[in-house]
Order: sequence, then C-alpha cells, then structure tokens
Amino acid sequence: MTALQKSAVCVLGTGLIGGSVLRAAATAGYRSWGYNRSAAGAEAARADGFDVGTDIRPVLRRAADEDAVVVVGVPMPALDAVLSDIGLLAPECVLTDVISVKTPVLATVRKHELGARFVGGHPMAGTAESGWAASGADLFTGAVWALGVDPGTHAESWERVARLALDSGAVIAPVIAEEHDRAVARISHLPHVLAEALAVAGAAGGDLALGLAAGSFRDGTRVAGTAPELVRAICEPNATALLDALDDALRLLGDARDTLATDGTLGALIDAGYSERNRYDTLERWDITDIRPGDHDWHERLRAAGQRGGVIRQLN
Amino acid sequence: MTALQKSAVCVLGTGLIGGSVLRAAATAGYRSWGYNRSAAGAEAARADGFDVGTDIRPVLRRAADEDAVVVVGVPMPALDAVLSDIGLLAPECVLTDVISVKTPVLATVRKHELGARFVGGHPMAGTAESGWAASGADLFTGAVWALGVDPGTHAESWERVARLALDSGAVIAPVIAEEHDRAVARISHLPHVLAEALAVAGAAGGDLALGLAAGSFRDGTRVAGTAPELVRAICEPNATALLDALDDALRLLGDARDTLATDGTLGALIDAGYSERNRYDTLERWDITDIRPGDHDWHERLRAAGQRGGVIRQLN
Repeated sequence: MTALQKSAVCVLGTGLIGGSVLRAAATAGYRSWGYNRSAAGAEAARADGFDVGTDIRPVLRRAADEDAVVVVGVPMPALDAVLSDIGLLAPECVLTDVISVKTPVLATVRKHELGARFVGGHPMAGTAESGWAASGADLFTGAVWALGVDPGTHAESWERVARLALDSGAVIAPVIAEEHDRAVARISHLPHVLAEALAVAGAAGGDLALGLAAGSFRDGTRVAGTAPELVRAICEPNATALLDALDDALRLLGDARDTLATDGTLGALIDAGYSERNRYDTLERWDITDIRPGDHDWHERLRAAGQRGGVIRQLN
Repeated sequence: MTALQKSAVCVLGTGLIGGSVLRAAATAGYRSWGYNRSAAGAEAARADGFDVGTDIRPVLRRAADEDAVVVVGVPMPALDAVLSDIGLLAPECVLTDVISVKTPVLATVRKHELGARFVGGHPMAGTAESGWAASGADLFTGAVWALGVDPGTHAESWERVARLALDSGAVIAPVIAEEHDRAVARISHLPHVLAEALAVAGAAGGDLALGLAAGSFRDGTRVAGTAPELVRAICEPNATALLDALDDALRLLGDARDTLATDGTLGALIDAGYSERNRYDTLERWDITDIRPGDHDWHERLRAAGQRGGVIRQLN
C-alpha cells in the first residue's frame, strides 16, 4: 500500500456512523478530520482527540488541498446543503457517503454535478444509540459495507473508497443503488417498522403484558428504541421499496390471520419462516477474487457477483 | 421452611421448560424425578444424573405415594393423554403446568375433573432451542412465572406451586387464565408470527438482501428459528387472543403503509413505537406484599395487583 492509497479522509457529520468512520480511519493510519453541525457533537469528538470543526468551509478546503476522500455522514435531509458546499469547495475530491438509502443520494449527487468521483456506500452496522458517544473504531469489524457499482462509477475512486471500507474492518458487497434500496427495505427498514408495530400492539396489553414480556418481545422491539427522527430519516426516503416489502409482510400476516380464523392454524407461514431464518443463519458469503475495478465490464460483473452473495475481502 | 413445604416434585415432559423445572427443583433441594415420552430425551436426563423414565405409570404412582407437586411440561397436544394418566394414578396431587396458554389447559383439566388441586403456571423464559439438552437450572433466574389465581384455586396448592416457582429463581405474576392468554398473545405469540413474516419477506430479497442483513433483521427474526411444530403448539391454542393482537398489528402496519403511499411518511407509528418500547424498558415491577393466599378475596385481589404489574418475590 502506497502513501497515496492510504492518504486522507474527511468525514462530514460525525454521528454514530460518520464518527465511527473517522475513528476507524484514524486507527487504520489515515490522516483524518471532520465536520459536525452541532457544537456539542464536534466538541465531544475533539475531547476524544479528533480534529472536528463546526465550520464546514475550512474542513472542505483542507480536503481539496490534501486530495482527501470525502465521506458524507449526515442524514438524508441534510444532504443537499452539504453537497452545495462540496460543489463549491472540494468538487474534485473522491466522494462517498454512508447514508442508508442509495437512489435518492445518487440523484442528489448528480443534481449537484458531483457524480464523476462519487461512489455510494452504506456500512451495514449500527446500534439503537446515536451520536458521537455511540461511535467506535470497531463498529465495522466483520460488517458488510455496500458499495455502489452503478454504471459510470470511476474505477480509481471506487478503489480508494473500497480500501477505506476494508481498512475499517468491513467486507464489501458491490451493488447498484436501486437493488441496494430494494434489499435494505427488506432487511433493515421493514424490521424497523415491524418492531414499532410490535411495541405498540404489545403495550396495548398493559402493564400485565409488558411485565410478562421476555426474550421474544425484547428482541422483536429492540430497534423501536431508535430515535424516531432517525428511523424516519432512514426509512421514508426509501418509500417505494419499503412499500413493496410492507405489502409482502401484510399479505403474509393477513394470510396467517385468515387461516387462524377459519381453521385454527397459522398455515404455511411458520414452516416458511423457519426455513428462511435457517437460510439466513447458514448463508455463506463467498469471496469475489477475479474481478478488478477497471476490468472490462467490471461494474456489471461486480453487480452480478454481489447479487449472488459475493463479497470482496481484499483488493489485489 | 418445613420438610413438607419443600418436599417432592414430579415433572412430566422434560423438554426445555419441564427439564429446567426438574433441574431447578433438584438444585433447590426438592426430591425430584420425571417422565419423558421419548427414550432419547429420558436417557439424556439420566446421563445428567436425573431420575427420568419413559413409563409414566411408576412415575405417577411415586408422585401419589410421596404427595409430590406434579408439573405438566408436555406440549398442549399431549395434555389430554397425560391428564388421563394423572386422573387414574395421582388424582390427589397438587397439579400445575408450564404450558404457554392457560384457558385451554384449564378447560382440559376440568374435563378430567382435576381442577380441585390445579394451579395453572407459565414461566416466561425460553430459548430458540428445545429439548433436555437446552434446559438449565438457571433458566428461570430473574424470570417472571405467571401463576393462576382463577376463582376456586385452592390456597394451599397455590402456595406449594408458588414456592417451587420462587425456589427456581423466578418472581410470580398472579393472573387469571383468560387475561394471561390475552397478554401472552401480544408479547409472545405475536412476536413469533411477526418474526416468521419478517424472515420470509426478508429472504424474498435473495442472497444480496440476506448478505446485507445486520442486527435489526437478526434480532427481529431470532424466534423464527424455533422448531415450527413448537411454534404452532404455542400459538395456535391461543387463536382467539392472537387474532385480536394480529388484527391490531395489521391495522398499525396498514395505516403506516397508507401514509407512506400517500404522503411519504410512516405516520404516527414511529413515535408511538418508540414511546411504548421506552415504557417497556422503564417498567418497574412492584412487590405484592400484603395479600396472602387464603385471605378474604385473595384470588381477586392478587389478580388486580397482577394486572397493575405487581409481582410476588417471597411468601410470608
């Protein structure tokens, strides 16, 4: 690895995910610094020894000067304003993000004419907590980091962002924006919505019911403990894909409800659920080793490999 | 505590819950033995030093001889046959059960004319695993053990079963059968059904989606790993109450789906779910100390206390 490959990282928004990127990058030996809108968040990061300011302009000027990878870690509603600043102050930098939905991010990036060096990202990690205080350098250890291989993605930019993800301890799942959004609607956004519904339907049983609640309720409602504004910022920008997933869940639950009402059984759902949970438990991620960014058709080949569950564990 | 109070326990069905009762009773110093239908299960228990046979008749004769508390730990579908044997061989014993639904158990017990010494029970503990191998003496440590205070429950029988639950490390939530079933439909059976639906709707995203799945999907589908026949045996006998809970969940999810489709928001669900999960997290169980079995109106007074979230931590 040359000095150029592991050079500089500038993180905009040092909450749980952005803050963890900043920590992981520093731990991996990158020169790194950041920006956070709230003074309290920036101060907390500085107290831990990180160079995080509340004025985005000098932060981005340094990114341009040092040819940093710029990592956008702000929530979706704040993206537009941050991209305006990047367009003015660091338009040539390699740009990535850690926002939980990819199609709206890609559209906004293109609107700002920043698509040439952009690589969409989404590390699949988190906790119910948020903010710098919840961040950690090891949040991505063993996690999967979705990385965009949308048509036109620049190979060298992709490699630089991929290296940052790998150096943070993650493995990379290559994916295009639309397929990413459909997938996370099912395995991240739908779980949030079901957890909220379970919390409400359970609590309708009163203190007796909540007092009897054990592991199944505790685990099933865990992510309902996430701050509501964060849940909305994660789920609502992915409305189209989430609607499909919600309709599937409503159909499955409605069918089980109907067989329970008519013949006292939960029908096919229980066997199907067991079988699919088992499929998840036994899923083995296989390594993509034969496709290099820049190769002929590399976007499409990485996309196809990602669809089949392949991940990248190292760059050649 | 006299020798009579902590005397003998006979467990019928030594799977996860029954096996754990046997272990916990032995650890607490009760004379204890059991029966298990499958030879493999009985053999596993014997290998661990427990007296568990596959012929129910001598097991129940000993229970009658030693005035044991008989604990029924078989699944609901096997209850009828086991109660027939108890009616023949040990009809005078104090009788309890650890089955996850109470109204159908009570009805079956009464059909067998075994109601006089019966106290319905349901320890709120478990794992996705099942069978003797998954059992443990500490499964009930800190758990809540629902105990029936249905009208007519015999005070001394209730005290003996309550003592076993407390000696197993649990606290006791007094409850009548119908209210128990309505409560567990919401905090145990609904979580199972939602987990199954999430597993199926998630896996519909293919290996890409399952490969991107992280904590929210893992936790939300955990109990879908429970053996399907066990899930059906737990949930389906509680069809009436489960239908109410499922209809609530379907309404909440349907409303969220509709606002997402029309105005791009998940509506009131997210705030409500956060608020109710917080209510669960901060729920404090208060101690019932002033009501003794046999007191005037004790059934009704314990029931009312249980409804308000009260638990019994010791017998006076």
